[in-house]
Formats: sequence, C-alpha cells, structure tokens
Amino acid sequence: MIHLSVFNGPNLGLLGRREPDIYGHDTLASIQAATDARAAELGDVSLDWFQSDVEGELVSAIGRTMGKSDGIIINPAAYTHTSVAIRDAIAAVGLPCVELHLSNVHRREEFRHHSFVSPVSLGVICGFGAYGYILALEALVHHLRG
Amino acid sequence: MIHLSVFNGPNLGLLGRREPDIYGHDTLASIQAATDARAAELGDVSLDWFQSDVEGELVSAIGRTMGKSDGIIINPAAYTHTSVAIRDAIAAVGLPCVELHLSNVHRREEFRHHSFVSPVSLGVICGFGAYGYILALEALVHHLRG
Amino acid sequence: MIHLSVFNGPNLGLLGRREPDIYGHDTLASIQAATDARAAELGDVSLDWFQSDVEGELVSAIGRTMGKSDGIIINPAAYTHTSVAIRDAIAAVGLPCVELHLSNVHRREEFRHHSFVSPVSLGVICGFGAYGYILALEALVHHLRG
Amino acid sequence: MIHLSVFNGPNLGLLGRREPDIYGHDTLASIQAATDARAAELGDVSLDWFQSDVEGELVSAIGRTMGKSDGIIINPAAYTHTSVAIRDAIAAVGLPCVELHLSNVHRREEFRHHSFVSPVSLGVICGFGAYGYILALEALVHHLRG
Amino acid sequence: MIHLSVFNGPNLGLLGRREPDIYGHDTLASIQAATDARAAELGDVSLDWFQSDVEGELVSAIGRTMGKSDGIIINPAAYTHTSVAIRDAIAAVGLPCVELHLSNVHRREEFRHHSFVSPVSLGVICGFGAYGYILALEALVHHLRG
Amino acid sequence: MIHLSVFNGPNLGLLGRREPDIYGHDTLASIQAATDARAAELGDVSLDWFQSDVEGELVSAIGRTMGKSDGIIINPAAYTHTSVAIRDAIAAVGLPCVELHLSNVHRREEFRHHSFVSPVSLGVICGFGAYGYILALEALVHHLRG
Amino acid sequence: MIHLSVFNGPNLGLLGRREPDIYGHDTLASIQAATDARAAELGDVSLDWFQSDVEGELVSAIGRTMGKSDGIIINPAAYTHTSVAIRDAIAAVGLPCVELHLSNVHRREEFRHHSFVSPVSLGVICGFGAYGYILALEALVHHLRG
Amino acid sequence: MIHLSVFNGPNLGLLGRREPDIYGHDTLASIQAATDARAAELGDVSLDWFQSDVEGELVSAIGRTMGKSDGIIINPAAYTHTSVAIRDAIAAVGLPCVELHLSNVHRREEFRHHSFVSPVSLGVICGFGAYGYILALEALVHHLRG
Amino acid sequence: MIHLSVFNGPNLGLLGRREPDIYGHDTLASIQAATDARAAELGDVSLDWFQSDVEGELVSAIGRTMGKSDGIIINPAAYTHTSVAIRDAIAAVGLPCVELHLSNVHRREEFRHHSFVSPVSLGVICGFGAYGYILALEALVHHLRG
Amino acid sequence: MIHLSVFNGPNLGLLGRREPDIYGHDTLASIQAATDARAAELGDVSLDWFQSDVEGELVSAIGRTMGKSDGIIINPAAYTHTSVAIRDAIAAVGLPCVELHLSNVHRREEFRHHSFVSPVSLGVICGFGAYGYILALEALVHHLRG
Amino acid sequence: MIHLSVFNGPNLGLLGRREPDIYGHDTLASIQAATDARAAELGDVSLDWFQSDVEGELVSAIGRTMGKSDGIIINPAAYTHTSVAIRDAIAAVGLPCVELHLSNVHRREEFRHHSFVSPVSLGVICGFGAYGYILALEALVHHLRG
Amino acid sequence: MIHLSVFNGPNLGLLGRREPDIYGHDTLASIQAATDARAAELGDVSLDWFQSDVEGELVSAIGRTMGKSDGIIINPAAYTHTSVAIRDAIAAVGLPCVELHLSNVHRREEFRHHSFVSPVSLGVICGFGAYGYILALEALVHHLRG
Repeated sequence: MIHLSVFNGPNLGLLGRREPDIYGHDTLASIQAATDARAAELGDVSLDWFQSDVEGELVSAIGRTMGKSDGIIINPAAYTHTSVAIRDAIAAVGLPCVELHLSNVHRREEFRHHSFVSPVSLGVICGFGAYGYILALEALVHHLRG
Repeated sequence: MIHLSVFNGPNLGLLGRREPDIYGHDTLASIQAATDARAAELGDVSLDWFQSDVEGELVSAIGRTMGKSDGIIINPAAYTHTSVAIRDAIAAVGLPCVELHLSNVHRREEFRHHSFVSPVSLGVICGFGAYGYILALEALVHHLRG
Repeated sequence: MIHLSVFNGPNLGLLGRREPDIYGHDTLASIQAATDARAAELGDVSLDWFQSDVEGELVSAIGRTMGKSDGIIINPAAYTHTSVAIRDAIAAVGLPCVELHLSNVHRREEFRHHSFVSPVSLGVICGFGAYGYILALEALVHHLRG
Repeated sequence: MIHLSVFNGPNLGLLGRREPDIYGHDTLASIQAATDARAAELGDVSLDWFQSDVEGELVSAIGRTMGKSDGIIINPAAYTHTSVAIRDAIAAVGLPCVELHLSNVHRREEFRHHSFVSPVSLGVICGFGAYGYILALEALVHHLRG
Repeated sequence: MIHLSVFNGPNLGLLGRREPDIYGHDTLASIQAATDARAAELGDVSLDWFQSDVEGELVSAIGRTMGKSDGIIINPAAYTHTSVAIRDAIAAVGLPCVELHLSNVHRREEFRHHSFVSPVSLGVICGFGAYGYILALEALVHHLRG
Repeated sequence: MIHLSVFNGPNLGLLGRREPDIYGHDTLASIQAATDARAAELGDVSLDWFQSDVEGELVSAIGRTMGKSDGIIINPAAYTHTSVAIRDAIAAVGLPCVELHLSNVHRREEFRHHSFVSPVSLGVICGFGAYGYILALEALVHHLRG
Repeated sequence: MIHLSVFNGPNLGLLGRREPDIYGHDTLASIQAATDARAAELGDVSLDWFQSDVEGELVSAIGRTMGKSDGIIINPAAYTHTSVAIRDAIAAVGLPCVELHLSNVHRREEFRHHSFVSPVSLGVICGFGAYGYILALEALVHHLRG
Repeated sequence: MIHLSVFNGPNLGLLGRREPDIYGHDTLASIQAATDARAAELGDVSLDWFQSDVEGELVSAIGRTMGKSDGIIINPAAYTHTSVAIRDAIAAVGLPCVELHLSNVHRREEFRHHSFVSPVSLGVICGFGAYGYILALEALVHHLRG
Repeated sequence: MIHLSVFNGPNLGLLGRREPDIYGHDTLASIQAATDARAAELGDVSLDWFQSDVEGELVSAIGRTMGKSDGIIINPAAYTHTSVAIRDAIAAVGLPCVELHLSNVHRREEFRHHSFVSPVSLGVICGFGAYGYILALEALVHHLRG
Repeated sequence: MIHLSVFNGPNLGLLGRREPDIYGHDTLASIQAATDARAAELGDVSLDWFQSDVEGELVSAIGRTMGKSDGIIINPAAYTHTSVAIRDAIAAVGLPCVELHLSNVHRREEFRHHSFVSPVSLGVICGFGAYGYILALEALVHHLRG
Repeated sequence: MIHLSVFNGPNLGLLGRREPDIYGHDTLASIQAATDARAAELGDVSLDWFQSDVEGELVSAIGRTMGKSDGIIINPAAYTHTSVAIRDAIAAVGLPCVELHLSNVHRREEFRHHSFVSPVSLGVICGFGAYGYILALEALVHHLRG
Repeated sequence: MIHLSVFNGPNLGLLGRREPDIYGHDTLASIQAATDARAAELGDVSLDWFQSDVEGELVSAIGRTMGKSDGIIINPAAYTHTSVAIRDAIAAVGLPCVELHLSNVHRREEFRHHSFVSPVSLGVICGFGAYGYILALEALVHHLRG
C-alpha cells in the first residue's frame, strides 16, 4: 500500500473563483475528487490532502509525514518562489516529492520562474491545470513502484 | 453603502512603542479611531479592520473579502517586500486596493524599495505616517464613487 | 498662511490628450482649478504652479523657492527616473516635498520603478490620477500644520 | 484521430549509454516503443518521431508540422538553454507543445535552469526519466480532447 | 537576574531526525536541557524557549519580549534568509540579539549566505552545532554584564 | 500630402566638424538639403526640421506635432540613451516614428547600446551616416502610403 | 558590377504563414522578387540568396563569399541573439554587412535586444517588414558606390 | 595667451546657501573671483565663466568653445552622472578638459560614483571644495604649457 | 596504440585567410600535417581529424568516439561560448578532452571569456596559435601514458 | 595536549587605538593575555600567536602549522574579503579553523559581508569584540575534544 | 610645521621605464625631488616618502603615522582597486588623506574605476601625471592651514 | 641563449603535501628539476626560479626581470584572481608571459574562473598538473624562437 501526502499552498482554497483564465474553473474539492478517483484506479494508493495559506503550517504538516508517508505531491503556489522553510521541510523528511503548478509559471512574471522547491524534488510538472494532479500522482506512483 | 477592508501586517500591533522616530507615536487603535471617524464624515462608508503577524492569515482574510468588500486598504509592512502570497490574494479577489506605508520606504534600506503588492494595487501612498490611512481612505472612496 | 509650490514636469502640458487610458482625461488646467479650490477650502493655503518640459528650468524654479515657499508638490513625470539635478535642487532648498504620479508607476515598465526624487521627499503618492494632487495638497498641509 | 510530433534534441541518440545515473538506462528506441504502446492504448493517437543533433534540422522539422500535426512533444536537450530558433519555430507553427526533460534540470548547473522553450509551451515536465514521455503524451492528449 | 528569550525557527522541531550530517543528532529538547544547565552555572540567568514553524508566530513572540526580556538568542533557520518581518520585530523590541546557526551557512547554497537578521543583531555564531547555543548564551550574558 | 517632422538632438549642430571619423563630414544643413531634395522626388512630402541641444525643447516640439504631422523622424543623439521624456513625448503624440543614428551605436560604448526611444518607434536605422536620413524618409513614407 | 549576398536565417522559410501580425504576410519568395526588381533598377547590382535553418550552413555560406561578393545583407533571425559563429564568419570575410530584421526587435522580449552581429556590421535596419530588404539594398549599394 | 572656459552645472547658483556641510560656504561669485585672481598670478591666462541649470545650454556653450578656447574646466554637478550629451560635447570640441567636484563624490550615494565625463577628461579633481577650482586651473595651465 | 580524435569548429576552414593578426597564417591543412608529424614522433599515436561549421555535426561526431577513441582534442571556436550540446557530448562519451584555442581568448571580447567546454575538459590551452595543437597532443598523450 | 595557532591580520596591531567605537578599547596584547588565561583554565591547551599586516606572511605561517597544530583561530581582518591565498592556505593544511571578527561585519559596508575564509572554516563568530577570542577558543576546544 | 607622509604603491619603483605612454617619463626620484622643492616653497612643510610593492608594508607604514604625521598623500597604484587593508589603515590613523593617480583611471579598464581608498580620503586627484603630486601637496596643505 | 624567469605564487611551497587530489603529488623541487631537465634538452635555455607567498615580493621580482629575462612563466596561484599588482608588473616589464595552473580552474569555484593575469599573457595553460610547466616552457621557447 502506498500512502501519499498532497499539499496545497496559499490561495488555492479560492480555486475556481480566482482568475479563472489563469487557474481554470476547477475547485480544489473537484480536483481532490478526481485525483482520489484516479488513485483508486491505480489500486493500493491512498492520498492525504492538506491545504493552508500559512507557510509554517505547511512546514509542520510536511514534517509530520516523516515516517508516515511514502511520497509527497505539492503545489506550493506563491510559496514556491519565497519559501526556504518549505524547501527545508521537504529535504528534512527525505521523501520523493513531485512539485506541481496549475499554470505554466514560465509564461508569467520573472519572479515566478525560480522555485526553491524544485531542487529538492524528484520532478516538476506545470501548465496542465487540474490534470497536473493526475500526472503528478501517476509519476510518483510509477517512481515508487519502479 | 461602501464596505472597505483594512489590513495591517506584521509588527503593526507594536505601533506607538516601536521605533517612534520611524513609525511615529500613534497606536494602531488610535489610527483606527481616527480613520473610522473620517469614514463617518464621508458618509455611508464602513471599515473592517484586520491585523495579523502571520502572512497566511492575511492571505486568508483577504480571500474572504471576495464578494463581500468593495475595496481594500493594506499596510503590508514587512510582507510588502517578501510576500507573493499576499499579492496573489489581492489579485485573486479582484478588488481595488490601496497600498500604504507609514514611513517613506524609499529613504530606507534597498530591500524596502521593492513591493510585490504595488503592481496589483490601484495606487500607493507612503511617508505620511498615520495620516496616510486617511489619505488612503479618501483615495479609495473617491475611486469607488468616481 | 502656507505658500506651496507645485511643479509639473515634461509632457504634462499634453494632459487630457495624451494616452488617456494611462493618464486620464483631465487637463493640467482643470487639475490646477480643482486643486486651487481645495486649497481655498483648507484656508490660508496658496499654490504657485509651474510646468516645464525642460529639466533645468524645473531645477531653477525649485531653487527659487528657497526662503519663499513652505513646501513643494512635484510631479516630475519622466524626470522622476533620470534627474539627479531635480533631486539635488529639492535637497538644496530643504523644503518638505510630496512626490506625485498620476499613474501607478509600479504597474509599468521596470525603469519607471526607480525614482531619484523619492529619497529626498517626505512621501510619495501614485496611481490616483488627478485626485492625487488633492491628496498631495492635504498631506503636505497636514504635515506643515501638524 | 490525433497526430502528434515528438522531437528529440542533441545527444539523445546516445541514451542508455550516456551518463546513466543522470539519464537512465533506457534507449531512445525503447522509449519510443513504450510511448507508442501507450498511444495505442489511448486510441486514435499516432506519433511521429524525429531526432537530430542539429538545431537547424529540428527547426525545419518543427516548421514542417504546420498544418500537419495536432501537437508537439519536445525534449530539446541542450538546445533548451540556447536555442531561440527552436522557440521561434514552435511559436511559428502555433501548435500546443509539451516540453520534456529526462532529468530534473533544476538540480543541475545554473545554466540549465533557464529554458527558451518553456514560454512557448503549454506545460513542462521534468525529472521522471523515460516515463516523462508517457506523461507528456497523456497531458497533450488530455489537452487536445479537453 | 537576567531574563533571556530563545527563539527557534521552522523545522527545528525535527532536529535529531533531520539530515543529521548537516544538523547533528541532538534534539531541540536535549539542546534546551544543556543550555539551561549552562545558564544555571552562570547564575541568575533564566531562559524562555519558543519554537514555531510559523514566521508570524515568531514575530508575535518576539514582540512580546518588549519590556520583559533582557536579550534574545535566535536561530531563525530558514527564515534567516527570507524574513523581513522577524528582522523588523527584533529592531522593534530593541533588545541585544545573538543570531545562531547550527551549520556553517557559508559552506552551503548561495541563498543561505545572506541574513536579514544579522544587521539587527549584536553578533552572529554559526557552524558549531548544538554547542552554538552555549556560546550564544555566554556571549549574550557577557555583553549584558559587561 | 504627407507632413513629416524631423528632430535632431544635442551636438548635431556641430556635424561636419565633430569627430568626422565617427560622424562623417556632412553638416546638418547639407543633410537637410539632400533629404528635402529626396522628399521632393517622392512627391507630396514636406519636412519640418527642428534641432535643439535642450532635451525639454525637443519634448515640447514633439508635443506640438500632435494633430499636425503624419510622422516623425528623430535622431535623438545622446538623449537616445538617457531621455525618458523624449520617449514619453513620442508615445504621447502617437505618430509613427523612425529612429535614426549616424553611427552604428552597437560598435561603440556599452551605454550606447540601449535606446529609450526604440520601443516607441516603428523602426530603427543606424550606421549609414547622412544617408540614413534618406533611408528613414523612404521607410516612413512607404509605411504611411502602404 | 556589384555582387551582393543575401542571407536569411531560421524559420524565414515560413514567412507569410508565421505569426503574420509580427512578421507580415510577405513570403520570402515575394521579398526576393521585390528586392531583385529594385536591384535591377539600381543597375549593375546582382543578388545571391541563401536561406537555411542551420547555423553552420549559414556560417559556411558566409565563408564562401570571401573574394566573391562585394557585400552582405543578412537577416539572421533567431541566430542574431545566439550565434558567435555567424559573427565570426562575417568578421572573417571582411565584407561590409547590413543587418536586417523584419520586426522592431526592441519592442519584443529582452533577449532580442542584443545582437552578436551588429558590432561586425556596417549598419542595422529593423522594424520595416519586407521593405527593410529594399532599404538594406539601397544602403549597401550607396556605401559601396560612395 | 591661454583662454580657458569654465562651466558650472545645475544648482551651483545656490552655492553658499545649499547644504553647506557638503558644499561649503563659498558662493559661485566668490569662487570665480578667487580663481580669476589665481589666473592673473599665473599670467596670460583668461577665464570665461558659464553656469546653467539646463543640460542643453551647457552642451551648446561647450560646443561654442570649438576653435575659441584652449581648454575646459567643468563642474558638471548632477549632470556628471546622467549626461551623455555633455560628454559628447566635450569629445566633440576636442579640448583638454579638467573635471571638478566640490565634494568627494566617492563618499556619497552609489549613483554619484559614476561619471560620464571622466573618460573624456584629461583628469579629475574632487573633494577639495572651492579650492578645487584653483587646483584645476593650475593643472590645466601646467598641461597646456608643458 | 593511442587513438585520438581532433575536432575543429566553425570558421576554422578559413584559417590562414581569416583575420591573420588574430589567428595566424597557418591553414588547417598545415596544422594537421604538423600535428600528425609530431604524433608520429611520439610513436603509436594516431589522430582522426574532423572539422565542421555545424554544431550538431560536431555533436554527432563526438558521440561516435564513444568506445572508439582514447581521447579528444577540440578547438570549438565560436561554439566554445554558446554550445551546451558540445559540452554534453563530451561529458557523454566520458573521454579525456583537451580544449584548445589559437588566440588568447582572455584578451578579447568579454563573451569569449566563458567556455561551456572547459568544465568537462581535462585542461585548456590558449594563445599559442597553431603550436597549441602540438602542446595539446603532448599533454593528452602524457596524460594517457602517465 | 591541544596546540592551537591564532592568526591576526592587518591593522590589528593598532587595536585599542584604532576606531574604538567599532573595535573597542582592548589591545591585542590584552586580548592575548585574557585568551591565554582562559586556555589555562581549560587545561592542556596551548596557543601560538601570530600577527602580520602582510598577507603572504600569514599564508606562510598558516602553511607552517601543517602537522604541528591541532586547529586554527583566525581574525583575518581586511584580508577576510580579499584573500584567496589565505583561504587556500587554510584548506591546504586541513585543520579545523574558527573565523573570528571583532565587529559584526554584517552591519557594515556591503563588501565586508563576503568572506573568502568562511567556506573553509568550521564556524564563524562575529560581533562580540575581544570576547570573541574566548568564544572561538571554547568552540574549537569543544570541537577537538568532542 | 606640517609633517606629511607620502606613500607609493606597487610597481611605482619602475616609473620612467614602465609603459611611458600611460605613466610618463618621470622617475619616482625626480617626482620626489620636484615635490620636496614645492614643499620648501610652501614653507614649514616636510615630506616623508615611502614606497613598497608589499601591501602589508604599506599598511604597517600607514599605521606608524598615527600621532606622527599631519596628513597623508597616497598613490596606491594597483592596490587602489583590491586593498581593504590599506583602506582600513587610513581610516585607523584618522588623518586627512589625498588619493592620487598618475593616469586617469576612468579612461582605463573597468576594474580600475573602483577605489577602496576614495571613501576614506579627503579628495582624489587623477590624470595629471607627476604634476599630480604637486597638486596633492597643495590641496593637503591648503586643507590643513584652512 | 634564452633566459626565462619562472614565478610561483602562494602556497606552492606546500605542493606535494597540499590537497593532492587537486594539485598532485609532485613537489615544487621535483617540478623544478624536471623542467630544468627539459630546458637542457631544448638547448641554450636557462631558467630562474622564484617562489613567494607575498604578492609584493612577486611584484618586485617580476620588476627585476626588466632587461634581464627574455620571457616569464608564472603560476600565480591564488593571486591569479585578486592581484592587479602582478598584472601591472607583467605589463610593466613588457615580456612575453605564459600563465600556468596545475588544476583546471574552470572546474572549480566561480571566483577561480577570472584571472587578472590572462589579458597580459601570451597564452594560458591549465589542468595538466606538473606537466604544465614543461608545456609552458615549450610554448614560450617556441614563441621566442619562432
């Protein structure tokens, strides 16, 4: 059985209502439902979901995965570009991590092109909207099973 | 009736006691009183006040204005220079926003010259101490009524 | 009695006709009328207006305020970003100065984010169009009376 | 029926023999076989494969997709970081493009952190080795069918 | 009697389990015990300990030392490099502050070489692991008694 | 009938005497004569010439073309690299503008490689000496007639 | 008799179909026809045309002009910004060279503002679309005859 | 007989009244008198003085020295750091030039450390207040006689 | 028996005719003859020579040395400064490589000071003209025999 | 028995007389006495002291510790920021090294924020004046005994 | 009686023989003779001369002026650009210092434009060759007597 | 007869003992013996050897070669990256100079990629360990005899 933790960063609770031409019309709840469904199809994969607007709560939650999860999927949102603390938390727990962005950050402002999280991640996926969660799930499960 | 939300960032709870030669002798309570009084003079303007030292709580509170406020006045304090999350929250709710600083940030350290919030704001006011809140209020009300 | 000098920089004579989606439809004459009217309301406040497209004429005019004005309101326009001479003139006369921009310069090209004038100003106001002159007037009078 | 073009850049013909701790043990032939197999599973999806060490041959080949393909998957390899010509070719043909890297480029040398291709791509996937081709295929098909 | 406040930043609750080749095998509890013991030896020195993963909670806690502590020892961890808010809090309370890092930050990634906290600190100690707390304590007590 | 305004910036009055190996032996008068002659050949094209060493006089003169000229040819000389005011004037009047340099600025000092004027111009011509005025004239007339 | 070589870089074979709002509707064939026609008008001027998407083929072709052509017109397209090899080839053959761009590169992305070719060229023309080839031809012939 | 031209830039008309701790208590008139007196001592040396706040007037005045003066002494004041036009004027007239600053510009703001004028000057003198004019005079006369 | 591969980059086919004050009067043929002669003297050393103006052809040719050569001598010419692909090819084949330049690149333009190839080479030799090939040969043979 | 070498760099012979508000009133002799006394308390610890204003003499002296000392304490003073040679000497001898500064270098000029020595040191202590030597001694002895 | 110390840095012992088109034909001995002669004319001024190629010997010698000289003239030569130690020595002794360069450093390589010494000097003189020593002497004596 | 001077910079006296995986196991004495032997083979070539850890002693020694040596071989070690004084000394004596490094500096820290010495050298050799001295000798003799 594979246990994965999925972390969502600031403002993602507004998904579906926030700038839909950038972030799409899916809500975080509908994304969770679709991703959980795909996990069920993959078999023996469970997902824990955590969203917070507070950097430190994300840090604490990542810290709690140590010894309890097999891997991490994270959409750090705005903290991607500013949080050394989240980077350190991911490095601290030592789990394989997939970094995910709804939008293609490389088409946006210069400051969104740098991620503190990427160098401590297994891989990065961006630009595919809500479907990116499915891809991240498949990538991480493939990695853990491979 | 105009409903405005006023956000104050980290360390502003210490106002009046903190480095008075930079920030002045007014407390946040006295600023709130004076600004509410001015709102009353303007007629049909109400202000909701929120202060937090926690970036993510400011993010959440800004998110909650969506569909409930007509505009935002924000003194992001130290988060001005480091918070993409607050910038994204303001962009997400899509309300006109006035950015406000007590001190003239351009006379201070280099890192205080850049604001993540300014590009998502209607306008910026800095350097006028507590009176800046009155100016911000007038500017935002003028914009909403204009 | 408070005597203030108001300086307007290059291209501001074109106001009302120049890129109205950035600078609005007010002319400099209508702004002057509205601001003078507000000064009259404040009581015992007179404004001297000076506009020039020539950096050096602005420098000379600022120099002439020494010992004759109580404060300066300046919209340096394009010279904001390139004029050390205007900065030095303001520092030389030693009067409290409010820097003003019609547009929110922080939403525009990178080179408009830096101002040589801000570090010698009391405070800065930008993004509120013609109403910024009213705000600047109030801020400066409040400062001089405070 | 969906027709996709898959482009592989310089040195990818050496895959399987080249620095296997970075790039893995799969050859380009085995990757093609696995990806074609996945395309078959998806139904009505065909893939054209093209590899070249020559930047200009990649440019020409991308140009030839205009009006003939429905989308592009590209692993530009070293040209990711240096080729404006490939970027322009992708922009010129106007097809949705998925950029793909075997390794997580953000864990490697600084010069590999910048991609000329990302801003003209729909999305980017990196760090999942040969499995990244499967993910790219799924992402592009999902986009075209969505 | 000297009252000191000791602040520990994000991920330090994971000490002893987190990347032990960088951060050592001591836990925060064992460090606290050893440092308290040393304070007892020094005589008339008490230590208040506070750890949080949340930047804003550290800000608030530092703010509460105003008028209550004689000095601050802080290991800001990841917030060292990103937090203007913590810097402002330390400046606001105006207490002598010793900045402390377990690892030698200058041997690590470039972004760890800059500290927002150092310019508002009395001094900085890094690279001595858990023993750095003892050194910081001695340095601060020496300063307060000197 | 096409009415064009030709602007020449600082030190161009010295042409023919100033550093002839860089700027050639033609005087501004001889350039004007040759260009007017070419305009006559093109038929129904008139040129107004204006030279000033004063940035602000160039700004004012450009402003006066609003509604009176069909296009602008400008050799901003030294102000190319330092004048936001001239850039703003060109943008303000909204006329098609051809930027012209006698020398190839890209072979000279680094600071001559950047032009504030180019991004508000239709096109740029440099390096062909006095003949550049003929080329600029032809290019602008072709554009206006095309 | 003047023999000129005209070089066109990557993606220019797509002209007329590629992003017409940037590059216009002319094809390379129609440009060649119009430019050859203008050469015929100038008398005793012949043009050799060469287009390639491959940087090295352009390098070789430029090298072959040594001792065979009297001048070079080049639209290096994307290689403008990345090719030291083309720059070296132009310098190696020692012929007068006119650099040409269809679009005004200074209105586009930052990386298009730098040209490796300009410092080895006689002059540069950009922003006039297909008509730029006529201008380049006239400029080069004027130079060779002058 | 040696004829020298002395140029003084913006705000220097305020000397003696402007920030005396930086610029001293001498007025421009008293400096002129003292320097003329020293010229008289040197014998057969005459000085023409010109001050303007307008960059372009300084440019024109420098241009008029061509063929009429033997050398230039210039205190470009604020234009030191921003004026390519003055630099070009000095280069254009081809006279030996001594650059002079009252204050030691290297002890002041970073932007005052760069001079556009220095690379076209014979030498530079700064930091000696009004006495710098005497030194500049002696240096230039020594150079012309040497 | 030692088998070495010698690669020469763009424009080197023009050697002897191209800017002889920078590159000397030797042709590539005469260099090859002299270097082969020296290899013969060293005994049991054979050299394969490959020159191309096309980056990708150099990449492919380097790739073909895998398992067939004992070492590489490369003069990447202009591609030194721009080619990640050649760097990756050298790293991919894993052979000891000597980088060679005819001119002393550090005396030339700034952009020639950086080499993508140096960090994957055993050592670098520059500035000794054609004799550098002899030195590179000796260095590589010494390394392989040492 | 632990043998330590203590190195003091340029201008430290002036201690006690040099800028006492930055460096304090202790002389190097009094610091040596106090530190030797503390070493005596620690038992079985001896200190060799060496001061020089000459970078190369410090380099030689550090080199002589190879095989003779157990550790190094160094206050490189001004050479901290400029000496690769001292850095290389410390790396060469391979001994644990504590870097020490009397002042908090991070509160001073920008160029004092970078140290060539820190990356080859065990740890760094700054800002505690003469007491820093005691702390460095304790830290190094603790490390060697730990 | 005024006692001044004159310091000359590395390679100045070669003056007269070293690159005479940059540094002139005077030797250090002839400069000393001429400057001593001028000091004699000024009356009651004595000069101590010290030259060394060794940075640290210059540092020590500057340190020895503390309490013994009234002022410093220094030509730091190459150490101008690299020596924090000399800067610190000048600041340590607290004497007025005139910095002097034979050549106009601003016409030379970029790295010669920055001086570590200027911010701790009274003023700077450059570009007047050997005569600069006379000017420096006069400037310093004028300052001390003023 | 050719007389060459060989200079070795700081820490090279430690060769053979210092970080042998970077610098190899040869001592400076064994290198000298091998190089002298090779000089003997070349016939009529003598070598003077000088090593110092002191920058200024190297400067003085280089200065003494003026008129006495025919060329210079220098391994400036750490001073490569920091010494303008050594650069100036080499330029001053005007002899052909070969710069040499044992290690491939381009594989090491960023600050080792820049050399102040390279632009005043004939050529540069790095990465071949002790054998680099033989290569440098051959290169310099070849140059002097060629």
